[in-house]
Amino acid sequence: MPDRLPQGFTAAGVYTGVKRNPNKKDLSLLVSDRPAVGVGVYTKNVVFGAPVQLNRERTPSESIRAVVVNSGVANACTGEQGYQDALMMAEKTAAACVAVGQDFAGPDVLVMSTGIIGEMLPMEKIAKGIDEASKILASDEQSLIDAARGMMTTDTTHKIRSRSFEIDGTTIQVTGMAKGAAMIGPNMATMLGVIMTDAAIRVEDANAGLKDAVNESFNCISVEGHMSTSDTVLLLANGAAGGPVLEGKALAMFQATLVEVCEDLAQSIPADGEGASHLITVEVHGAATREDAVKIARTIADSPLVKTAVAGADPNWGRIVSAAGYAGVEFDPSKVCLHVNSSLLYERGVPVEFNAEEISAAIRENRDTHLVLLLDEGHASARFWTSDLTAEYVRLNADYHT
Amino acid sequence: MPDRLPQGFTAAGVYTGVKRNPNKKDLSLLVSDRPAVGVGVYTKNVVFGAPVQLNRERTPSESIRAVVVNSGVANACTGEQGYQDALMMAEKTAAACVAVGQDFAGPDVLVMSTGIIGEMLPMEKIAKGIDEASKILASDEQSLIDAARGMMTTDTTHKIRSRSFEIDGTTIQVTGMAKGAAMIGPNMATMLGVIMTDAAIRVEDANAGLKDAVNESFNCISVEGHMSTSDTVLLLANGAAGGPVLEGKALAMFQATLVEVCEDLAQSIPADGEGASHLITVEVHGAATREDAVKIARTIADSPLVKTAVAGADPNWGRIVSAAGYAGVEFDPSKVCLHVNSSLLYERGVPVEFNAEEISAAIRENRDTHLVLLLDEGHASARFWTSDLTAEYVRLNADYHT
Repeated sequence: MPDRLPQGFTAAGVYTGVKRNPNKKDLSLLVSDRPAVGVGVYTKNVVFGAPVQLNRERTPSESIRAVVVNSGVANACTGEQGYQDALMMAEKTAAACVAVGQDFAGPDVLVMSTGIIGEMLPMEKIAKGIDEASKILASDEQSLIDAARGMMTTDTTHKIRSRSFEIDGTTIQVTGMAKGAAMIGPNMATMLGVIMTDAAIRVEDANAGLKDAVNESFNCISVEGHMSTSDTVLLLANGAAGGPVLEGKALAMFQATLVEVCEDLAQSIPADGEGASHLITVEVHGAATREDAVKIARTIADSPLVKTAVAGADPNWGRIVSAAGYAGVEFDPSKVCLHVNSSLLYERGVPVEFNAEEISAAIRENRDTHLVLLLDEGHASARFWTSDLTAEYVRLNADYHT
Repeated sequence: MPDRLPQGFTAAGVYTGVKRNPNKKDLSLLVSDRPAVGVGVYTKNVVFGAPVQLNRERTPSESIRAVVVNSGVANACTGEQGYQDALMMAEKTAAACVAVGQDFAGPDVLVMSTGIIGEMLPMEKIAKGIDEASKILASDEQSLIDAARGMMTTDTTHKIRSRSFEIDGTTIQVTGMAKGAAMIGPNMATMLGVIMTDAAIRVEDANAGLKDAVNESFNCISVEGHMSTSDTVLLLANGAAGGPVLEGKALAMFQATLVEVCEDLAQSIPADGEGASHLITVEVHGAATREDAVKIARTIADSPLVKTAVAGADPNWGRIVSAAGYAGVEFDPSKVCLHVNSSLLYERGVPVEFNAEEISAAIRENRDTHLVLLLDEGHASARFWTSDLTAEYVRLNADYHT
């Protein structure tokens, strides 16, 4: 089934000349034909870009009409001029959309920028691109793909996931796009996501729902252990599917779909990397609290030693157990078990005899590696995704420019 | 000036057959001819080796006589048998020393093991090695070097630092040895250190002094962001230099020397790596608290993006400022300045025009890289040392075995 936009949304992606290659896209527009609930989750980095500042002021909202995104320049570490430029991007977008028959004003636009930090936006190119994009807004699959491509930086592929579900005869569509890649260029480690839905949701439900979904997905990937100055995930809900405002079971079904879309998009980030050879899934079960489970899963996923071991197809349980041990969580090490790709390597604090050649081959021959750590402290779980660390990956990152 | 042992200490390093190459050493003895104050700082990993457990029980102490160290097998994740083996190592050491004319008992011996985890110690080889070492204990420089070599795993060179100072006509010697390397083999990320001195110090001063010194040195290096199951630093003070117990200014002079020795040894760890091409010093000044400064310095030093940038001689201020921003410390980003090798790249929140080629060349042509981040929040500082992350380094780590 083709990916498709939810009802009432149109999209466009164009080339403005910020990227060097004219076969790429570097500016995207997403427009709702009616006011949408708009909420966001933003980077916790104390150094953040101008668009993050602007969006924080404008969300949560019940009247968002558009999102404009540019790639190539992040508009971060750009001071007051950067903030004015972000404002101008929003105003240009509103004006361009009004010119093609939409009826909304500046404050109803959200802005995202990704790319090099510390450089000013080339506002002429951006303005021209916004005009151009506004004229080709459409709801077909190609327009959706073009918009997803307009936010890419080091991504090797665009990332779109769409899901739908039915509730009382109404089909609700949830479609998201994201950018971010395991292979990270200088200053380009940013992760961006926009989820659109034609569901009718209360702004407070959207806000809480997006936070939960992001905590289980985009906040559970570790590519570099780096949190960028521009990380942003937005949710727009315009109600164009019709039907009543979602509540109870219907709202729960929406939330499950939202989490699914976010998880799929989040996984696709560490999975996308020229230099990476494995997508690693780290599962921790039996922790005392969710927070403990997340800390341990994150520490394992962030460990360069674990990541190089997977790259080398080395079933090195010691690195994994030791990383768990310094996560800052108290647990009884004599109760820990570890599975790698379904093979038990470590059982209640003691290594198990295993066929290293066989397990090594299983790691080498599959792109997915599963590390499952079992504690005996409680019932909380967490799941993290990361990529492995290969020599090729480091070469690409170190030699990226200069 | 040759490195030398403090008065009253003898040392030996031998080959027992645990390592494959008979030209190496894999067991070391350090013996004091009289009871010494003995204190230790140990790994915070909740998964820790049997020797760590034993030493924790035996320190602080006023009657330590010897330290026995083996390399090749870490005696970690080895359960109750591992603990019995560590006890046995201590007892064998006492017995061997008594046989050569020393007069002390089992509980006065500390034990360190480093190497593969999850394997049992080959106790026959170890016992034979202890006997052999006890017979060649000596105070010359070669014996000191042999002992330092006996604790090496992936180190490419032995690490010894000795310093002395005079107080009221008495010369106090402080000599330390350490193992640990930027190039980390599987399960071998362990850092070990032993500092010996002939100063007379109270056990409580030794304990507090070692903690402080380790916090400014061994706790300020980041090779992998990994904390091993066996990390240990011991301080032995036997008073053989004569003179009164150190107090006031004399104690302060001792502490300064101890910090110097620990800093030198700590730096030599990230500096030692086949795959690493730079020793990176990260300085943070102007933080509100020492804790904040340490958090920021550690986050920068741990960042694979910063480490690959240095490997690629890329003056990428964005990665450094962004890493500072997600350290979990509140600060005003508009007041931040950054120097790389004395060149100002970022001034009060805004990038500075700089000659990228020149700064890149300066990184490429020097083994030392200095990153200095200035905040404007207070007067606290911290300094961290790390190595860069090269493709060669990852290749060596990934392909280490299996």
